[in-house]
Amino acid sequence: MAAFATRTGKRVRPHAKTHKSPLIARLQLDRGASGLCCAKLGEAEVMAGAGLGPLLITTEIAGEPKVARLVALRKRAHVMVAVDDRDAARALSDAMLAAGLTLDVLVDVNVGQERTGVQPDGAGELAACVASLTGLRLRGIQAYEGHVQHVYAEAERRMKWRACADRMLAAMESIRSRGLAVEILSTAGTGTCAFAAELPEVTEVQAGSYPFMDCDYARVEGLPYESSLTVLASVVSRQRGDTAVIDAGWKALSTDAGMPAVKGRPELEYATKGDEHGGVRGARMVPGERIELVPSHCDTTVNLHDEYICIRKGVVEAVWPIAARGRIQ
Amino acid sequence: MAAFATRTGKRVRPHAKTHKSPLIARLQLDRGASGLCCAKLGEAEVMAGAGLGPLLITTEIAGEPKVARLVALRKRAHVMVAVDDRDAARALSDAMLAAGLTLDVLVDVNVGQERTGVQPDGAGELAACVASLTGLRLRGIQAYEGHVQHVYAEAERRMKWRACADRMLAAMESIRSRGLAVEILSTAGTGTCAFAAELPEVTEVQAGSYPFMDCDYARVEGLPYESSLTVLASVVSRQRGDTAVIDAGWKALSTDAGMPAVKGRPELEYATKGDEHGGVRGARMVPGERIELVPSHCDTTVNLHDEYICIRKGVVEAVWPIAARGRIQ
Repeated sequence: MAAFATRTGKRVRPHAKTHKSPLIARLQLDRGASGLCCAKLGEAEVMAGAGLGPLLITTEIAGEPKVARLVALRKRAHVMVAVDDRDAARALSDAMLAAGLTLDVLVDVNVGQERTGVQPDGAGELAACVASLTGLRLRGIQAYEGHVQHVYAEAERRMKWRACADRMLAAMESIRSRGLAVEILSTAGTGTCAFAAELPEVTEVQAGSYPFMDCDYARVEGLPYESSLTVLASVVSRQRGDTAVIDAGWKALSTDAGMPAVKGRPELEYATKGDEHGGVRGARMVPGERIELVPSHCDTTVNLHDEYICIRKGVVEAVWPIAARGRIQ
Repeated sequence: MAAFATRTGKRVRPHAKTHKSPLIARLQLDRGASGLCCAKLGEAEVMAGAGLGPLLITTEIAGEPKVARLVALRKRAHVMVAVDDRDAARALSDAMLAAGLTLDVLVDVNVGQERTGVQPDGAGELAACVASLTGLRLRGIQAYEGHVQHVYAEAERRMKWRACADRMLAAMESIRSRGLAVEILSTAGTGTCAFAAELPEVTEVQAGSYPFMDCDYARVEGLPYESSLTVLASVVSRQRGDTAVIDAGWKALSTDAGMPAVKGRPELEYATKGDEHGGVRGARMVPGERIELVPSHCDTTVNLHDEYICIRKGVVEAVWPIAARGRIQ
């Protein structure tokens, strides 16, 4: 990803929601990342506490308790947030002004994911509102196309991405037509960085999964990243014929993106057996025997664990805390 | 559940895998629980560290690293484990003997869940093996019928449970026919305690979910427990018409048992919107507005969080750490 930044001239602002680790964030910044994305205020608090930044919080912040926390965070860190609502923007501006601060803001645009963000043709109106609020500073657009990242076939992914890009450009035009500048266009994940690099208007990408990947991302054509993340499990029972029962269930491996894969043994098939157990079909294994599982979704699996056990060539070199694990608010 | 124990004469050994909290375990023991179940060694280590017990580890333990941890745990705590394999039993016995210890053991019987456990007619053979191993002490049977707990209709649940009970009795007969005693029959969860109470051979129940319940258990007919567990979320965006986007997705609420319910507002419908977001359909809510969600599965949702915020009549009375969260090994 550092090579991608050098080659394309795009800034990379890795998403810390994937790794939730200040140590990994530090490695990314050391290799040229221009800052970090955080999904939530709690994640940003952990990163700021480790002296890292600048930070972009990619989820809207609203409600008095969170706004107060954001003010406290802004006092000690360079933090920017996404907004998609005029009332919420006013509340942020008022709180910042009351504390003698200003807050950098990106207008969040819905480019087809249908989650947060204004429609492209509404971007100008919200941007004008932000520009009029003296506690906020309009910096540009966030336009994340999460629904396209996992489209496996490259041609189809590119086609779907193109529709998102058209919406990004429409939003940009809607803002510029009001005489306002769009300095930042923050977009793209691991699955679409290569496309985003072809759009001159894009200034930065928000990729998160690339350091780890997972067995679902492995199905996405055309990505240059390898899988580095596994969950080590061991057999606890061999009483079910050709299905060994292991000590890793829903509490060890997320299944929102399907079942994990067994590393190096494609003939084996994992099936969930509840909170605490999994079944591995296809081999007779003995109790105590270990296998490594490649998660189907790195973000939600990492969020189940407290530590990375860092291994190089079979030797444990470090144990890194997943310091922002569970920081979901 | 304490009243159930008094009324039926069955011992209650609550499963700590649900709450993962030594503080809640302490409350259960203070109210007459006869000990605690732990799903994993790591959970038992936390409970033992808080001075709690006696402990039953309900998942088989195998492999040198875990056996060594079990020996260390056995030195400081009263711990019993389930076994379903002769080689694994021998390894446990050898390790205990080498440390000058003995370990209480239950023969784990498959009563229809098809996960761990020997078949009922193989229980006697394994029990005889355990009885012959001088590092182990045969105490009885574990026969957990996890597949029956969430059968919603009471008559159907009872019928399915009856088949499990027949298998428990067959296993017991298989052991007793070899002249061995079955002092403990540990079985049942929140959904089947009432049935287990009718079987004289049952000595204890392993219920875990009853202190919290969840919106799936709420559909199970005939249970006297109320829901006490919710996840507090807030609206972050209102740009998608009648679907408010909230700050609670897969990292806040497990979905292995379906979607959470919105507390007190049955007309609202939650849908997952990824790791960090959810959608709540059916009401126009403003950013910052809060709602409470009732998880669909208490165990896997609790395992996502670090603390219980304990509320009585709207007032926060305590914050309890979920000390064994993530202790899955």
